[in-house]
Amino acid sequence: MTQHLLLIDCPDEKGLVHRITGVLFHAGFNITSNQEFVDSSSAHFFMRTAFEGESSPEPTIEYLRQILPSSASIRLAVAGRRPIVLMVTKEPHCLGDLLLRHEYGDLPGEIRAVVGNHDTLRPLAERFGIPFHHVPHEGIDRAGHESRIQSVLASYAPEYVVLAKYMRILSPEFIREWPSRLLNIHHSFLPAFAGANPYRQAFDRGVKIIGATAHFVTEELDEGPIISQGVLPVDHTFTAADMAQAGRDVEKLVLAKALRLVLSERVFLHRNRTITFD
Amino acid sequence: MTQHLLLIDCPDEKGLVHRITGVLFHAGFNITSNQEFVDSSSAHFFMRTAFEGESSPEPTIEYLRQILPSSASIRLAVAGRRPIVLMVTKEPHCLGDLLLRHEYGDLPGEIRAVVGNHDTLRPLAERFGIPFHHVPHEGIDRAGHESRIQSVLASYAPEYVVLAKYMRILSPEFIREWPSRLLNIHHSFLPAFAGANPYRQAFDRGVKIIGATAHFVTEELDEGPIISQGVLPVDHTFTAADMAQAGRDVEKLVLAKALRLVLSERVFLHRNRTITFD
Amino acid sequence: MTQHLLLIDCPDEKGLVHRITGVLFHAGFNITSNQEFVDSSSAHFFMRTAFEGESSPEPTIEYLRQILPSSASIRLAVAGRRPIVLMVTKEPHCLGDLLLRHEYGDLPGEIRAVVGNHDTLRPLAERFGIPFHHVPHEGIDRAGHESRIQSVLASYAPEYVVLAKYMRILSPEFIREWPSRLLNIHHSFLPAFAGANPYRQAFDRGVKIIGATAHFVTEELDEGPIISQGVLPVDHTFTAADMAQAGRDVEKLVLAKALRLVLSERVFLHRNRTITFD
Amino acid sequence: MTQHLLLIDCPDEKGLVHRITGVLFHAGFNITSNQEFVDSSSAHFFMRTAFEGESSPEPTIEYLRQILPSSASIRLAVAGRRPIVLMVTKEPHCLGDLLLRHEYGDLPGEIRAVVGNHDTLRPLAERFGIPFHHVPHEGIDRAGHESRIQSVLASYAPEYVVLAKYMRILSPEFIREWPSRLLNIHHSFLPAFAGANPYRQAFDRGVKIIGATAHFVTEELDEGPIISQGVLPVDHTFTAADMAQAGRDVEKLVLAKALRLVLSERVFLHRNRTITFD
Repeated sequence: MTQHLLLIDCPDEKGLVHRITGVLFHAGFNITSNQEFVDSSSAHFFMRTAFEGESSPEPTIEYLRQILPSSASIRLAVAGRRPIVLMVTKEPHCLGDLLLRHEYGDLPGEIRAVVGNHDTLRPLAERFGIPFHHVPHEGIDRAGHESRIQSVLASYAPEYVVLAKYMRILSPEFIREWPSRLLNIHHSFLPAFAGANPYRQAFDRGVKIIGATAHFVTEELDEGPIISQGVLPVDHTFTAADMAQAGRDVEKLVLAKALRLVLSERVFLHRNRTITFD
Repeated sequence: MTQHLLLIDCPDEKGLVHRITGVLFHAGFNITSNQEFVDSSSAHFFMRTAFEGESSPEPTIEYLRQILPSSASIRLAVAGRRPIVLMVTKEPHCLGDLLLRHEYGDLPGEIRAVVGNHDTLRPLAERFGIPFHHVPHEGIDRAGHESRIQSVLASYAPEYVVLAKYMRILSPEFIREWPSRLLNIHHSFLPAFAGANPYRQAFDRGVKIIGATAHFVTEELDEGPIISQGVLPVDHTFTAADMAQAGRDVEKLVLAKALRLVLSERVFLHRNRTITFD
Repeated sequence: MTQHLLLIDCPDEKGLVHRITGVLFHAGFNITSNQEFVDSSSAHFFMRTAFEGESSPEPTIEYLRQILPSSASIRLAVAGRRPIVLMVTKEPHCLGDLLLRHEYGDLPGEIRAVVGNHDTLRPLAERFGIPFHHVPHEGIDRAGHESRIQSVLASYAPEYVVLAKYMRILSPEFIREWPSRLLNIHHSFLPAFAGANPYRQAFDRGVKIIGATAHFVTEELDEGPIISQGVLPVDHTFTAADMAQAGRDVEKLVLAKALRLVLSERVFLHRNRTITFD
Repeated sequence: MTQHLLLIDCPDEKGLVHRITGVLFHAGFNITSNQEFVDSSSAHFFMRTAFEGESSPEPTIEYLRQILPSSASIRLAVAGRRPIVLMVTKEPHCLGDLLLRHEYGDLPGEIRAVVGNHDTLRPLAERFGIPFHHVPHEGIDRAGHESRIQSVLASYAPEYVVLAKYMRILSPEFIREWPSRLLNIHHSFLPAFAGANPYRQAFDRGVKIIGATAHFVTEELDEGPIISQGVLPVDHTFTAADMAQAGRDVEKLVLAKALRLVLSERVFLHRNRTITFD
């Protein structure tokens, strides 16, 4: 029996679960797990259904397209591990953590390549046998730099691009190429600090908690839908450097968790928020 | 339109969601929220469905009883706030916190009375206008003491009895009177400490985290299914007394959360674990 | 033997600990606990010393004033529980939690009165036998309203004024009256949300963590030095109201912890941060 | 100016801080940071003092030995990064995380070698240029196996030996060779679970929190003094495998933190607890 994963979201209406499960049922499929959620604030319906059966699910999906609201998003998850490419600059903590998880089966995806605007992390990537592409930004305008990155990315056909501490701002044009497929991680604080050297500001303010937020990148940059967040406690004995260390620790865990959720198709995007069936 | 809440759990089989939602759909009800979960380790199905409609849901529930596996547990949540009675000894932190939440609508239940084996907390309960019953355990055997408590409890017909730091061990006979309806809170440590004065032991071992666990009481006493847990950090500057204070803080939050979950019918009990649709 | 608590902070220089402990030693006092910290970023020295002895410590403190840098802050903690007054509006969660702790000895201070710009919480305060003063802000300008509050506060001579969910903005003039003696609690998010209805914004952004920050109030309002922070996890099933509930839970714990730290003289203020000897 | 780090612990007595700082002061040293703590439960004194100066600190330490209680432990931290050797079995998460931190300067120590009772992790260690020694336990008795390990360890003269998921029980004889120098990490639960497959038990009990504890190894095995602890939240949707994954995530962070504390001489051992000046 083959396993399938069906992902549906559409405006909520009466009898949706019944209709959808009915179609699967009458097509002879067995639902092994089912999660739905209705966002009452927007009357929107989300469903993640794992099912198994002998026959091909395609006709069933096709039929669902006919009976569900025309605005419905209906898709069958591609089988197997999803291809991803990581983008980095100089910081190794997120890249290293993802490479280790990848190597030891903690990451339900396939890291096809690493792209860096610096060559710093090449040894780390190659140590794990992952191709590293250095696409320097010096002596070239942003459009040119980004188009070179895009062509490297395109050559690996990733389903998701992960900014694993890629420290250059991306243009709206670049971001539009990866709608809901571009992930980012950044430190977070309560309260947040704008501007340069946030750990310095956090230190000056004497924060007691350091956090990290993993989110989809939208044209509003760090304002995209949040996938996962985490925190670690700090105190006055932490220097700004110690706080940065705590920040790196929480960043790598939060990014890995967010990526696990996304790669296992547990995340729905709706407006500016995520529904995470974890 | 009246709101209803349906709670079903039974051995998993093909088409359950479809059949159940179909029955509701054809009876003219509208599902406003639906959560299911299949425990793959035991092939058991859990479903919490909120629906609304004009007509009475009783015939529908009756019909579901006929078409679902005979071993299925199928029930309609009683409308309104569930009646509870609290049992206490001398510590005020959990009782006080629950009384405040109750008074200000943070607790979806109705505290009908407080029973204490000491009279210490009478002023606190009466301050909030809740009847307090002192059932002393001195000069009476356990069976006699417990039967007096039972008769007080019975007079309030509570749906749940909450041990809000009730410090006497209850007999299996007493516990059997409240199957899946008796909640308890106790401090927890990593690792756990058996025997007397656990905070002293925690201090001697230099634990860095203090926790609390809210659970249903079974005849195995503190071994019942866990509903909610929480922790607070401590360090070497904490005396055993400071650790106990941290323990009280986390106990009251964890008990309140567990009680909220139970009172809003978000907790299923299965074997020795809980499915919590929070 | 009487217990004393000495609090010193001054620019760091060679031999400070030696000189200070020497003075106490030669005066026949016994140091029972001693904490210092040098903020290397500002070369500033902080020391919290508990000591005991028969004779009066005053002459010793006087002598310390002569031998330490003229800019040093040197003070002997007042014995006994510090008097505080709470300011509230309509939300009971922080007030109720503090009243309970106060009643049961979890708060090393004395709540002398509660001042509200609404009369809503009078029953709660009076239930615990604490005087409640309703100082309405309607039909009076801010200066007038604040001067009425100041006179009520003055009549209780509090050492600290705690804004336990007081929801009106205070003027710089008011704040200047309570330098380093005015505490506030507010919800915090990663990232922070400016403007109205932050829980709505947090919901729209799909935050996964809700936090709270207790801080001293400076003329920059919510930008004052942080004393304590805490968080609770949330997810997409939380409505904006559920998030607000989680916010109230964490706010009350964080405010109580911050107040405990301040009342036990464990908090030093330096520039815009706190040194917390907890 | 050379930096020095002085670590003292002894029975508490009057004037200790004064005497110690006086000796340093008169020897012309400048104290840059100083932490003490008196464990009132055992009247024991702990002090961690960083100081700087031109001359050699040896004579000063010698003098301190004469004036302090004969039972005092007085030592000058060795300059530079402390040598460590890791012991592993098959799980890569802790080893990989430590190798990454080591490579990128997040670990104030020097990993000289990795010893495994299986050869599984050789590629990971060698990938980072660290020698790997496979000391199989098959076909040899425990004493023989441990003596081979001891000789490998001895050849690297490590200051600390870290059990980074070494899954064989060590004999009291082995442990006695590394008093207060042998670290271990293991998962922890609230409550704890004895016996085999704890994650299975945690799943069956429906725990909501997974934790980890880093501790010094004593002859009571997992009962040694705790250095650091951490937790991650889980729920009913986590399979036993998911819980194990969460356990690996928290184990690696907690071990790294504990090791950072130990390597930076921030941990004192007293009876069965640690004083951690973090």
